[in-house]
Amino acid sequence: MTRTEPAETPLGDAFHLYDTTLRDGAQREGITYSVADKLAVARLLDELGVGFIEGGWPGALPKDTEFFARAAKGELELKHAALVAFGSTRKAGTRASEDPQVRALLDAEAPVVTLVAKSDLRHIERALRVDVDEACEMVRDTVAFLTGEGRRVFLDAEHFFDGYAFSPDTALRVLDAGANAGADVVVLCDTNGGQLPLGLAETVREVKDRTGFRLGIHCQDDTSCAVANSVAAVQAGATHVQCTANGYGERAGNADLFAVTGNLVTKLGMEVLPTGGAAELTRVSHALAEIANLAPDTHQAYVGSSAFAHKAGLHASAIKVDPLLYNHIDPSSVGNGMRVLVTEMAGRASLELKGRELGVDLAGRPEALTNAVRKVKDLEAEGWSFEAADASLELLLRREVSDASGEEPVTPPFHLESYRVVLDHRSDGEVVSEATVKVHVNGHRVIATAEGNGPVHAMDAALREALSPHLSWLDTVELSDYKVRILPSNPGTHAVTRVLLESSDGEREWTTVGVHGNIVEASWMALCDALVHKSLTVRD
Amino acid sequence: MTRTEPAETPLGDAFHLYDTTLRDGAQREGITYSVADKLAVARLLDELGVGFIEGGWPGALPKDTEFFARAAKGELELKHAALVAFGSTRKAGTRASEDPQVRALLDAEAPVVTLVAKSDLRHIERALRVDVDEACEMVRDTVAFLTGEGRRVFLDAEHFFDGYAFSPDTALRVLDAGANAGADVVVLCDTNGGQLPLGLAETVREVKDRTGFRLGIHCQDDTSCAVANSVAAVQAGATHVQCTANGYGERAGNADLFAVTGNLVTKLGMEVLPTGGAAELTRVSHALAEIANLAPDTHQAYVGSSAFAHKAGLHASAIKVDPLLYNHIDPSSVGNGMRVLVTEMAGRASLELKGRELGVDLAGRPEALTNAVRKVKDLEAEGWSFEAADASLELLLRREVSDASGEEPVTPPFHLESYRVVLDHRSDGEVVSEATVKVHVNGHRVIATAEGNGPVHAMDAALREALSPHLSWLDTVELSDYKVRILPSNPGTHAVTRVLLESSDGEREWTTVGVHGNIVEASWMALCDALVHKSLTVRD
Repeated sequence: MTRTEPAETPLGDAFHLYDTTLRDGAQREGITYSVADKLAVARLLDELGVGFIEGGWPGALPKDTEFFARAAKGELELKHAALVAFGSTRKAGTRASEDPQVRALLDAEAPVVTLVAKSDLRHIERALRVDVDEACEMVRDTVAFLTGEGRRVFLDAEHFFDGYAFSPDTALRVLDAGANAGADVVVLCDTNGGQLPLGLAETVREVKDRTGFRLGIHCQDDTSCAVANSVAAVQAGATHVQCTANGYGERAGNADLFAVTGNLVTKLGMEVLPTGGAAELTRVSHALAEIANLAPDTHQAYVGSSAFAHKAGLHASAIKVDPLLYNHIDPSSVGNGMRVLVTEMAGRASLELKGRELGVDLAGRPEALTNAVRKVKDLEAEGWSFEAADASLELLLRREVSDASGEEPVTPPFHLESYRVVLDHRSDGEVVSEATVKVHVNGHRVIATAEGNGPVHAMDAALREALSPHLSWLDTVELSDYKVRILPSNPGTHAVTRVLLESSDGEREWTTVGVHGNIVEASWMALCDALVHKSLTVRD
Repeated sequence: MTRTEPAETPLGDAFHLYDTTLRDGAQREGITYSVADKLAVARLLDELGVGFIEGGWPGALPKDTEFFARAAKGELELKHAALVAFGSTRKAGTRASEDPQVRALLDAEAPVVTLVAKSDLRHIERALRVDVDEACEMVRDTVAFLTGEGRRVFLDAEHFFDGYAFSPDTALRVLDAGANAGADVVVLCDTNGGQLPLGLAETVREVKDRTGFRLGIHCQDDTSCAVANSVAAVQAGATHVQCTANGYGERAGNADLFAVTGNLVTKLGMEVLPTGGAAELTRVSHALAEIANLAPDTHQAYVGSSAFAHKAGLHASAIKVDPLLYNHIDPSSVGNGMRVLVTEMAGRASLELKGRELGVDLAGRPEALTNAVRKVKDLEAEGWSFEAADASLELLLRREVSDASGEEPVTPPFHLESYRVVLDHRSDGEVVSEATVKVHVNGHRVIATAEGNGPVHAMDAALREALSPHLSWLDTVELSDYKVRILPSNPGTHAVTRVLLESSDGEREWTTVGVHGNIVEASWMALCDALVHKSLTVRD
């Protein structure tokens, strides 16, 4: 693994898309990557086609040391990216060649090393406790040693923007020390994340003019401007941009790799990925969320499941005329798709469009469409909501089509006879939930009882107990998310409960809805729809 | 309610902080506000001190019509904000004075009206299907009619940036039509959300120079730049900025009110809120997330619980030297805290302050305060949240004070022995919920059974049946709101359910919280706290 430049991207080494998910992204509260996770993340980033993958801080974190060791042994074959080890410049008053942390960077065998150095006078004096001469010598010595050992070196100038505002000379001296010793790129870091784009772009332009160095940019999201700042820096002359997947990172996070790339590719026309790479953005974003064990952000720019979802009746009828009038880009260019949300605002046009998206053709079936529109409106008046429950809506549309046309009806894989749930708060304080279901499946009548930590959990457990021996695919289906909303009552009526259930079979996810005055019955409805929807795909 | 300008903000009418959570924010997939929710949202936004609150689209949506009717009847008393009704210009080929949708805007009795008009030639020709002359006449006629009726009018120029790029003359003619007919502000809308800040700022500057009109900005987040674009527009001359709470909105969302305000106040030094308002940003953001029934975004800029949380070993030791070297602002300036506090209340100082607000004096009781802080932190780690449950927090503080000082303890008016809830889905399809409680009250052991439309309703009914003969005040207490949130499970644990219960006795309202794996038990906890809290006031 000796590649030091991006491979197979049209822009080549002239532009660096640099990912630091495995180091800076891992600072996000709640993320704990195993070494296997780190290898999987690196492979996905390489599939996408980023130019540089920062793997971690060898010598400082044992897992990162192991990651580089396993990568060097052949567990990580990168097609596009160069692997980068991250570390600090040598300690004050030593020599780089004798600093164990610097040696650990060499031992990691990564062809590229990114060194972090303080460039804010206040941090140099009060945190590092050295003078500027020594701070610069630490940079010079470490960069020179590593380039002498054949490494390509980038320099992260920490707290650059705050430092440049406070003492421009100090900040520029640190850049000088790195560039003159052989660092290929000096990276301006907005470490505290306090910048806004217009001011940041001006600083980048000024530093570019004053130094002529190749500049990189690294932004944190504390003003909610990390993506904007990164793109503005590129427009101002930076040719190396550091991001993390989905913006993972400390505090408010980092610049989101997917939004930055989406902007560079679709807005600035920069071919920063290998040909066809942009169409992988959505898939890779979701896969990386899975590995981080975080739910994908449904409203994330470019790659979120709602990023091209339209709800307003104002737009829905016009969208049929020309979808591109209502989307800033063609969603398929980033591997995403347009969705139409069905809400109380919606009419025939949007339901027909939605049916097409779900694979139910209503265009030539005016009667089914009329009935479906009436049914959706009636149900939404009762508190149902289909905008986040595509699977339940698909079942509703299919039933209307089969009713109107006599086509094959939607048959549930089982029938409920009855259930009973008992919740006991005993006199010793213990709380117990127990459910019994009586169902008919494949010609059998089955009774099963199970306990759970709450009523819905107990009912799900009892149903699985009853059906598992008869439905081979049931074990692949998991409940991945469960949301409850109490809808306020209208005058003269009782409050009702709406349940949204997200299911997963390891390959796809689908969402169903149930509404009832009783939360357990509402959950039952959503659970049944989830299993019926799965059974349709099994029979295909 | 006739205010047409922001009250009590240092910048007055010279700058408009304009919120459209209730209209554009409600377009977010998953948000369904009831009228009561909408009133609560408006009150919180007004407490924060925004200048304008757009309440919805009267005449188009029945709930919005009802919201304005109830607001006009006195249910909404705004201290700072002017209330705004949103609507479209009149239909083609009619007269504004005879257009029912325009009349509905008048009937809403809001002193300010924001009209949306198409300003992109392609949308005018292909969606509206009129020529530019008629499009401009629709704007002129509607603005003139509404200003003639005494309304202050703003004009939202939809798809402005795309339209200006495609046909600048058309876009400017639409602005002209609005401004010349009396619109006070013409708002440049990035409706498809495709802009980047450097280009957007240039366009705003150019339009400002060419027209001299007072300009507003409305950004969507499709490039993840909505906040940056809004701030850049202000720097380029816009003096009216439209946002939504937490960036709620269609597709990727809108510009986040809290990040935009944080940037304007702390970065640009603009006093866009009443004095002290910025310190409310975090609290109001979280409360609005609760009402939307969405989990607050932990990594949100300025107001997220992680926004000032530090994990990096690189920084941790140096933070002690000077926290401001590692934060872009002082977190307390936006009501947030540097540590990973589960909420802003979990510090000593803020809990003491909160106690004072609730009538519990902790200032001279360091031991009780220490115990209370520990207890709140422990409970919040288990999923409790006291931010919206003052009554439960007050009971917790009173218990700590009585434990530490031997003062009169908080005695519940009854004790539970046990309860049982049975839910039956019978073979005839009927669903029945029945609850039995065994309680001790005033020296009696009482057993009572009742039915309800769901398990919680049945339990509440049984408890009332048991207690009513012994507690004369019980009949005055009603459950006025009930919210349920399923909290995601941590590794190795089950998901837990959090219930927020709002009670009312006709004079005041109070909110309690319960958390448990079982929704019925969580509801029971909140219900008990609600009755104990009421009993305290009865004894006073």
